[in-house]
Amino acid sequence: MEDLNLDPYIRKVPDFPKKGILFYDITSLINNPRVFAWCIDKMVDLYKDTKIDAVAAIETRGFLFAAPYALRRNIPLILIRKKGKLPGKTLSKKYELEYNSAEIELQPDDVKAGQQVLLTDDLIATGGTLEAARDLLVEAGAQVPEIFGLVGLPFLGYEPKFGGTPVTTLINYSSE
Amino acid sequence: MEDLNLDPYIRKVPDFPKKGILFYDITSLINNPRVFAWCIDKMVDLYKDTKIDAVAAIETRGFLFAAPYALRRNIPLILIRKKGKLPGKTLSKKYELEYNSAEIELQPDDVKAGQQVLLTDDLIATGGTLEAARDLLVEAGAQVPEIFGLVGLPFLGYEPKFGGTPVTTLINYSSE
Repeated sequence: MEDLNLDPYIRKVPDFPKKGILFYDITSLINNPRVFAWCIDKMVDLYKDTKIDAVAAIETRGFLFAAPYALRRNIPLILIRKKGKLPGKTLSKKYELEYNSAEIELQPDDVKAGQQVLLTDDLIATGGTLEAARDLLVEAGAQVPEIFGLVGLPFLGYEPKFGGTPVTTLINYSSE
Repeated sequence: MEDLNLDPYIRKVPDFPKKGILFYDITSLINNPRVFAWCIDKMVDLYKDTKIDAVAAIETRGFLFAAPYALRRNIPLILIRKKGKLPGKTLSKKYELEYNSAEIELQPDDVKAGQQVLLTDDLIATGGTLEAARDLLVEAGAQVPEIFGLVGLPFLGYEPKFGGTPVTTLINYSSE
């Protein structure tokens, strides 16, 4: 399929959510139906020859890309959310952030043993959340053959965290 | 299009997120690709003769339905989020909840004057958040001809809040 440079459609907001952080805002991308559709088409194209039984998405912005993708592939969508948001039986995992810790959960009933799950998010920075999400999926019995992110910040060193699982992003940024 | 009773696909979880509240869990629905696809087809069908220039979605679960719908209609997707989540210039609105207050925001640059915006969420309970969201869209220059919710709890009295704007839901529950 045709190439598209996503850079003009991603708004850069300095010092958000706190001083010193450059925020890559994808609201300007989903506000453009042609560009948003291209991203979903590209996801479909990337994994068209990969066996994928379900797609998992990390709250919140990850839902925007995984939901249309799940429908296009006709596969279940699994939500990974911050602790306390998912009702019923959950599996949870704590992980360390730069200055504190966080905890995410999934509903293990949504995962079937041996299922090949594509793990997705909108932006991959340090990769800490995705690493915890992958561990949760594996704990629930799934396999994670591929990780997808719309935007990647590989200079933050996420790659080694995934132990060889391929990571694909549609655009990368480097530190200036 | 064919009718479908969504009830078997919505898990009911008592006492979540707190005692006395019956939670309608739509994760069991999005985990079923046929049923999830039916919901989006139904949204497309409902508004096929309505002029809609953009769709607005309320975080978090509202994103799951509005994103595929925006792509199907080939229209922009506007996010309405809790305060502090959207970068850059925002319009915000505070509103009262049962025991406290909340604040939501949108990026006014995403809204064009006179745009007809379909406002959506996954569940309509008291309607307080949707009412504030509608006010924000109108303040940003849009018109809101229709409001959509996957699940409605009309016994909580949301209907009069929207001043005549039609509200459509795919399934309603009554208090037991």
